[in-house]
Amino acid sequence: MQIHIIPPSQALAPALQHKIDRKTKPLGALGRLEALALQIGLVQQTLTPELRQPHLVVFAGDHGAARAGVSAYPQDVTWQMVENFLAGGAAINVFSRQMGLGLSVIDAGVNHDFGKRAGLIDAKIAPGTANYLDQPAMSTEQCDAALRRGREIAHALADNGCNCVGFGEMGIGNTAAASLLTTCLIGAEHGADLYTVTGRGTGLDDTGLAHKRELLKAALHRGGWPTDPLLALAEYGGFEIAMMAGAMLGAAERRMLLVIDGFIVTSALLAAHAINPNVLPYCVFAHRSLEPGHRVQLGYLMAEPLVELDLRLGEGTGAALAWPLIQAAANFLNDMASFESAGVSGQDEQG
Amino acid sequence: MQIHIIPPSQALAPALQHKIDRKTKPLGALGRLEALALQIGLVQQTLTPELRQPHLVVFAGDHGAARAGVSAYPQDVTWQMVENFLAGGAAINVFSRQMGLGLSVIDAGVNHDFGKRAGLIDAKIAPGTANYLDQPAMSTEQCDAALRRGREIAHALADNGCNCVGFGEMGIGNTAAASLLTTCLIGAEHGADLYTVTGRGTGLDDTGLAHKRELLKAALHRGGWPTDPLLALAEYGGFEIAMMAGAMLGAAERRMLLVIDGFIVTSALLAAHAINPNVLPYCVFAHRSLEPGHRVQLGYLMAEPLVELDLRLGEGTGAALAWPLIQAAANFLNDMASFESAGVSGQDEQG
Repeated sequence: MQIHIIPPSQALAPALQHKIDRKTKPLGALGRLEALALQIGLVQQTLTPELRQPHLVVFAGDHGAARAGVSAYPQDVTWQMVENFLAGGAAINVFSRQMGLGLSVIDAGVNHDFGKRAGLIDAKIAPGTANYLDQPAMSTEQCDAALRRGREIAHALADNGCNCVGFGEMGIGNTAAASLLTTCLIGAEHGADLYTVTGRGTGLDDTGLAHKRELLKAALHRGGWPTDPLLALAEYGGFEIAMMAGAMLGAAERRMLLVIDGFIVTSALLAAHAINPNVLPYCVFAHRSLEPGHRVQLGYLMAEPLVELDLRLGEGTGAALAWPLIQAAANFLNDMASFESAGVSGQDEQG
Repeated sequence: MQIHIIPPSQALAPALQHKIDRKTKPLGALGRLEALALQIGLVQQTLTPELRQPHLVVFAGDHGAARAGVSAYPQDVTWQMVENFLAGGAAINVFSRQMGLGLSVIDAGVNHDFGKRAGLIDAKIAPGTANYLDQPAMSTEQCDAALRRGREIAHALADNGCNCVGFGEMGIGNTAAASLLTTCLIGAEHGADLYTVTGRGTGLDDTGLAHKRELLKAALHRGGWPTDPLLALAEYGGFEIAMMAGAMLGAAERRMLLVIDGFIVTSALLAAHAINPNVLPYCVFAHRSLEPGHRVQLGYLMAEPLVELDLRLGEGTGAALAWPLIQAAANFLNDMASFESAGVSGQDEQG
């Protein structure tokens, strides 16, 4: 799969910064929002960026290892939560509605037959991955198919006029997969040893966490530490993670703004980034999750997320909650008066 | 002025917590939003809180000391920015519109004659305070009048059906006043020495900051360190700060949710809190400002703000930007499905 991502030209940066600096506020007083406004302007290559049809895409998939005890919840919760998404009752539904975000749910590989359903995109690669304790989670063909399908999904969003996409996920066992991917793709030498990047997920107690770490150690003993993103995804990844990685690459190809959620979404970004690092300047990091591996990932990517609310829910909830801040950055750039237009004295005109 | 604030009964807390815990998410997975939902439920004494007609009130006033060089901007910027608010071009206008917040601007004591204007509430105590380098900023009668007027403004909002109010301010020189109030009302023994709580405000350089510190030291040499909130406000406070303090007390009397912005708004809260500490459980802290004294204030009040975006603009912008998170807390509590209603297996039902 050839991915063509053009890194945003920096040529507009001085004009954007000048526009930001002439707004009726002290220099720099909008802090993080100013850097964000600059980034959005550069992504869209305009002084008047517009966030059109912002959309959240939630990728769902099952993990063979879930039945081995890497999660506090039974595997059936994956499809039950997809049903909850379709019925509009999950946290991501509530927050997407509030924030005015479109929402699509993708069956990337759930172990359940949903039939044809409104609001659900059937992109099932297989009914769940294999158990990586015994064998690779998926074949390289399946991994490639998931990446391609994700890319198509992003391109279809762009074709429909969306230029800003948030990522979310659902999959019992997927913090375990994300921990394995993180240790492979970042490496212990950058702080991503398995112990550090393995957390409680949906809420394991100390015994459960110790058991999860033992299982993941055994998985690595079997499958090794592939540093190639496709091999790492095939070995340990979920279908939802691989498909998200493809969608991120496809979205960056179309110069969309990517809103990155928590630990699992960022593990997909690690893979996308290893495939094509030009994806990174298109990314806004929504929040810092409580899952300890997320901090390591963000450090590796030199990313500073917008909010830190001790979330560890997934679904894209952090992306949805941070959305108004992203919109606010575009809005102040477009709608605030300048010192000149408002007739306000600037700092340099002090009497 | 007698202030009657009933601290929220905690009797509903177990029922609220149970409702939060049965939502379709891992226990505690919504982090800070869960504590916020609990607080909102307790403030409103209901399992189904509703945030009605959320409103931002921006108090503006001038400071006699502004002409002595405590700010990087000339005093005229206060009224010019009020004009900018009325024209809809300031950051707080942009963010209030985006977030669906009502906005009122209060002339608590601006050195300018606005005449009768739509969107401006004339509550002028005097055209700016006296210069606290020479004499008290206001008389105790003026301070009392400002507090009373603020309380009336909050009561009028409540009478109109609003149950959630954010606070903002505008006043060239008011970070200096806030520094003086903070050192008086918290005290150096709790980390609020003048040096620590005096910052760059709208953007002083090193020389300007050193000059500001010298001026404020001279002010304290003249006026002392009154720990009584009315005396401290009269000695150093702006009319906008005193009126805000009154509005906070009035809002808490009516059991409204108070959204606290940055350093200057929190200095008003310090005064309100010293008058009646029961105001505190009604407060949500929106953000942590870059102004160094804000950190000291938040520590003293044991408050953990929702976001930290390196803002130092004032106007209530932090309160407006954090608003969707507050709404999201109420929304998930009201609108998310429970494990039972959605037919999702819980952690305790693991097979």
